[in-house]
Amino acid sequence: MNEAKAFLFVVEVVAVLACAFSGFAEAQRKDMDLVGVYVVAFVTAFGGGTLRDILLERRPFFWVEHEAYPIVILAMTLLATPMMRLAQRIVPNPAFVVADAVGLGFFSITGVALSLDSGMSPFVATMMGVVTGVFGGVLRDVLLNEVPMVLRDGRPYAIAAFFGCWLYVLMTRAGVNPALALWSAAAATTAFRLLAWRYDWSIKGSASRDDR
Amino acid sequence: MNEAKAFLFVVEVVAVLACAFSGFAEAQRKDMDLVGVYVVAFVTAFGGGTLRDILLERRPFFWVEHEAYPIVILAMTLLATPMMRLAQRIVPNPAFVVADAVGLGFFSITGVALSLDSGMSPFVATMMGVVTGVFGGVLRDVLLNEVPMVLRDGRPYAIAAFFGCWLYVLMTRAGVNPALALWSAAAATTAFRLLAWRYDWSIKGSASRDDR
Amino acid sequence: MNEAKAFLFVVEVVAVLACAFSGFAEAQRKDMDLVGVYVVAFVTAFGGGTLRDILLERRPFFWVEHEAYPIVILAMTLLATPMMRLAQRIVPNPAFVVADAVGLGFFSITGVALSLDSGMSPFVATMMGVVTGVFGGVLRDVLLNEVPMVLRDGRPYAIAAFFGCWLYVLMTRAGVNPALALWSAAAATTAFRLLAWRYDWSIKGSASRDDR
Repeated sequence: MNEAKAFLFVVEVVAVLACAFSGFAEAQRKDMDLVGVYVVAFVTAFGGGTLRDILLERRPFFWVEHEAYPIVILAMTLLATPMMRLAQRIVPNPAFVVADAVGLGFFSITGVALSLDSGMSPFVATMMGVVTGVFGGVLRDVLLNEVPMVLRDGRPYAIAAFFGCWLYVLMTRAGVNPALALWSAAAATTAFRLLAWRYDWSIKGSASRDDR
Repeated sequence: MNEAKAFLFVVEVVAVLACAFSGFAEAQRKDMDLVGVYVVAFVTAFGGGTLRDILLERRPFFWVEHEAYPIVILAMTLLATPMMRLAQRIVPNPAFVVADAVGLGFFSITGVALSLDSGMSPFVATMMGVVTGVFGGVLRDVLLNEVPMVLRDGRPYAIAAFFGCWLYVLMTRAGVNPALALWSAAAATTAFRLLAWRYDWSIKGSASRDDR
Repeated sequence: MNEAKAFLFVVEVVAVLACAFSGFAEAQRKDMDLVGVYVVAFVTAFGGGTLRDILLERRPFFWVEHEAYPIVILAMTLLATPMMRLAQRIVPNPAFVVADAVGLGFFSITGVALSLDSGMSPFVATMMGVVTGVFGGVLRDVLLNEVPMVLRDGRPYAIAAFFGCWLYVLMTRAGVNPALALWSAAAATTAFRLLAWRYDWSIKGSASRDDR
């Protein structure tokens, strides 16, 4: 039990920090100031879950219940410029992609599970799961005044979350133990996302697609 | 009674599909991928009503209660590119404008009616009605990284909804039967919008106005 | 007592009108139509408080309870173009900066006070205070399709609100009378902002910073 909890905690930390790092990187690329870097990192990490909780009327928000996370992100913001340079030098790029894929799996599947618990139908719960996983990035891109990457680049990112959420729904319907279903579906989402990245899958024929 | 219900259902379907089509057309113009086309169509169709329900603390959302609509829009998204081409070839452009005007009337007046039922004052209810009618298009344009059309083109679109909502308020105050008030005000909104389109009314003197 | 109430009312009017004026000015610069000018002014004045109330599940919204404000802003919108020209001729620019700084102090500190009353922790309450003070301007800039000024220009604007909110938290913790704490913290926020403006403080080394 304690090992399962410790593992959940490690995954949660990786998921939150991966989102925050993606916010740091984008905010610095667009030359935001300290306030902008913090807001973009915060919104990328917590935007999806916050929108889901507003839609489902759930409280408290994740970042209100676990306020250590926004405080850590604030501390990281004050160190963000030197830290990003250091991180980019010592951490290989695939490690960021893997951490981001872990975040996608974790947030999407906890999102669909919470939505089913709130009495949503499977289809609506699946959409809430995808929103939890990808909406932080949409808000990040809107604040940075760009067309959200996840809506245009043709990479199966939201689609990986969508299939993972349906896998969770089907497993719980089939009577699989909820914890097993959650971990399997999250792992499947992460694996789908990583395979799509590794083999450069695209749902768009056009040559105009962007690098992610 | 059954005829009235069937008529209401037809109007609702026309209203939802008209919004979704406007989302499809704009998303394809901006070269979104499948995920983007779905999200933009969804947001255009349901964004206004969802914001109204968040502001009024009403649940369930329209698209949660009638989940056939988002499922149909998802199915249409998978067919969107060929379908849009076919639709644009066989459906004359004025039919789209008429369907969109029907959507504006339907959503705005149901919005003001629900807001009055929730105990809002006439002025606030009127603003909620306009939000219900036009905010989906605002969100669509924000996601597509454009200044929202309805805020800048000088065409009386939100203003048609505003007058229609006040007509509904005044008719119910005057003791008119609610169903009659609803249909008259929705029809008046649609007619105002179509006259404004047909005769090219503008509330902006500048030569820089855009075509809608 | 009556004098304190009258003073509160004057500060509230200055705060709301300062935000609305900033919305008018930006909307006209971007060539919005009447609908756009009203929506941008409304969102700048009430967007921060509305987001805070959605996050805290508080109702009614400020603009629902005091609907005279949105009605006055609507009336001002109809006069906005000539009024802005007149206002810019007879009111010196520093008066706008001072009014805006009063608005920042008033909205931020009432925001942190309401959030503490709702049972939020000091850190979360402080963030809600900053959101109340600055989020209207963020929404304004998103609607105008720009990267929000407050996230990129390096001027201590959100930071002034952040320090003012912590001052309020610490004073109430130290047992200071709430009314005194509120007015002191709001005045400190306004003073911090005005000093930052007067002496051109910046938290950004780069030469690319914008004029506010």
